[in-house]
Amino acid sequence: MIQFELEAKDHNSRAGILKTQHGTIHTPVFMPVGTLGTVKALTPEEVHELGAEIILGNTYHLHLRPGDELVRKLGGLHHFMNWDGPILTDSGGFQIFSLAKLLKLDQSGVVIRSHIDGSKITLTPEISIAIQQNLGSTIMMCLDQCLELPATRQEIERSIALTTKWAQRSKDASSQGSGVSGKQALFGIVQGGGELNLREQSLEQMVNIGFDGYAIGGLSVGETKEEMYSVVHHIAVKMPVQKPRYLMGVGDPEDLLEGIEAGIDMFDCVMPTRNARNGSLFTSHGKISIKQNQYKEDPDPLDPDCACSTCKNYSRAYLRHLFKTNEILGMRLNTYHNLFFYISLVKQARNAIKEKCFPNFKKTFLLKYRS
Amino acid sequence: MIQFELEAKDHNSRAGILKTQHGTIHTPVFMPVGTLGTVKALTPEEVHELGAEIILGNTYHLHLRPGDELVRKLGGLHHFMNWDGPILTDSGGFQIFSLAKLLKLDQSGVVIRSHIDGSKITLTPEISIAIQQNLGSTIMMCLDQCLELPATRQEIERSIALTTKWAQRSKDASSQGSGVSGKQALFGIVQGGGELNLREQSLEQMVNIGFDGYAIGGLSVGETKEEMYSVVHHIAVKMPVQKPRYLMGVGDPEDLLEGIEAGIDMFDCVMPTRNARNGSLFTSHGKISIKQNQYKEDPDPLDPDCACSTCKNYSRAYLRHLFKTNEILGMRLNTYHNLFFYISLVKQARNAIKEKCFPNFKKTFLLKYRS
Repeated sequence: MIQFELEAKDHNSRAGILKTQHGTIHTPVFMPVGTLGTVKALTPEEVHELGAEIILGNTYHLHLRPGDELVRKLGGLHHFMNWDGPILTDSGGFQIFSLAKLLKLDQSGVVIRSHIDGSKITLTPEISIAIQQNLGSTIMMCLDQCLELPATRQEIERSIALTTKWAQRSKDASSQGSGVSGKQALFGIVQGGGELNLREQSLEQMVNIGFDGYAIGGLSVGETKEEMYSVVHHIAVKMPVQKPRYLMGVGDPEDLLEGIEAGIDMFDCVMPTRNARNGSLFTSHGKISIKQNQYKEDPDPLDPDCACSTCKNYSRAYLRHLFKTNEILGMRLNTYHNLFFYISLVKQARNAIKEKCFPNFKKTFLLKYRS
Repeated sequence: MIQFELEAKDHNSRAGILKTQHGTIHTPVFMPVGTLGTVKALTPEEVHELGAEIILGNTYHLHLRPGDELVRKLGGLHHFMNWDGPILTDSGGFQIFSLAKLLKLDQSGVVIRSHIDGSKITLTPEISIAIQQNLGSTIMMCLDQCLELPATRQEIERSIALTTKWAQRSKDASSQGSGVSGKQALFGIVQGGGELNLREQSLEQMVNIGFDGYAIGGLSVGETKEEMYSVVHHIAVKMPVQKPRYLMGVGDPEDLLEGIEAGIDMFDCVMPTRNARNGSLFTSHGKISIKQNQYKEDPDPLDPDCACSTCKNYSRAYLRHLFKTNEILGMRLNTYHNLFFYISLVKQARNAIKEKCFPNFKKTFLLKYRS
């Protein structure tokens, strides 16, 4: 199914190798988000070329459009979207609490209203697994309850109890049905808000059930960066050493380095792709907004220190022109660059871990990034 | 500047070679439209890969955004957009009469209102040439007056008289200023609506002035296909044999073959790119609308007889999904396919001319296309 090996350690940071039936992943790894069966604006060939070794698909979105049964009929998500590398699918848990309108929540699951056509959708741990089996992802996630922060201690306690029950049911369901492309791995999700001892409790319960990997969920949902970092640093080192650790939905370049420092192996975030389409671009000297007037006649590349094809072939003035005229090529070139920036950053971090100089790498990067 | 040689003839159809300082063009040729300094949705690398040997840029659009002086400062349109092949720029004449609001028209030129911000823009033959010199295109076009059809004989007579005067002034202007990337070729435009003897008169006046190539303008502007074909067949064979003949803004696949049969060498049209973005796709069996329900679960390629990467890698069901969810990748894959279809069609026509079997090629293509 999947096999994880640690290759190197530097303080709490880890470099590992995750083998799956769809290919090998070198961790730490950043997973571009392919919400609807496409990493927005790019072809799978380009995603490969960027060095991405795994992408993420969204169960909730794909269940709605085009429908997971349709995807299964057409050979599964890999075949449907022409991506032969590993795919991780989320459980729909995050979208339930962020995008859809919640109509009913009880022990069995949730009833929500689709954000597309208002239709009613029932989602249970079993249904989420069945959808992910239809999609045929490499790694599935358990349905969890993700709270908006701040939340009371009692709310958090209730949510981890429910998340644990759903996790057991997810595991049971996953051992029954089968994916369109063979045996799928399953990760459990640690909840617990900003309460460190509740995080520990949730982790313990997940480990008792036993999963192929463990994720930290429920962060980047309204808390401060300090709170998020404190949870990640506290809980990551307590997660099983021999399993991959995944920090869900996080974050900006600084968050990635902080997570890697804490011992996280996997990340996903819409930030590089979504920001790109809005003209917000990452460079080694920090973020820039390409629409600004100062770039109007600027013949320089977006980031002179970047080796991506956008930076090699196009000027800031051209990228600004494409953005201002709403040209599709602008979204493509921006997306390509931002993903290159993210993926390169994590690859460089991996090398630094192997060379036992991650703390220094992080410091040097941030000094320049914040300049 | 440019050099044109005929390589083969089959009845009135011609296969030629047009040498320019930016590269060699094999005619008949289809020129993808890159309105704002980008063939919408594609990179220049992809446009090359598709086999396009020359693209078109729009003087009016580029004058407005990002501005031709900015483009000149940044090294000209080739450098700005990272396309090193030949570029033909139109004169702005067509947009004056189709897109902008005309405020004033006299012998000197026109004053129009920008369709972007309502500002007043003066366009004269000299200004159009100066803009095209700033852009540094390979081939420039003379400013002409393009009438909407039907028009009275008197209106048409006045328009060809004005177009001839403007053509002489365009030629004079072109010999004075100079392009950002060296000496540019200049084509004259034959007007005359549907009146065959006025077309002849316009052509004669253009030939007397003397240009590097001649275009047929003012078609595909409201007349029937029969009228258009009758003008093209009548006038193309009367155009100078040793110069390239360009049919402006035309058309669908049937129009291209009709034009080639009449002896046309160059074509441009937004149809393949614009239709692609609207989900209207060309196949060897005719046009299809990918959004239709019948393609929902269709695992087949868009056109099983097509060798393009869209058809090799993706199903109709996937293309429909991308279109329905408004994904950028859908517009990319559709554009790639439609341009491949157009460019391949014209290349096949060229081969047929060289093999002296163009009439048969046309018949066979149309039989399948209309089936």
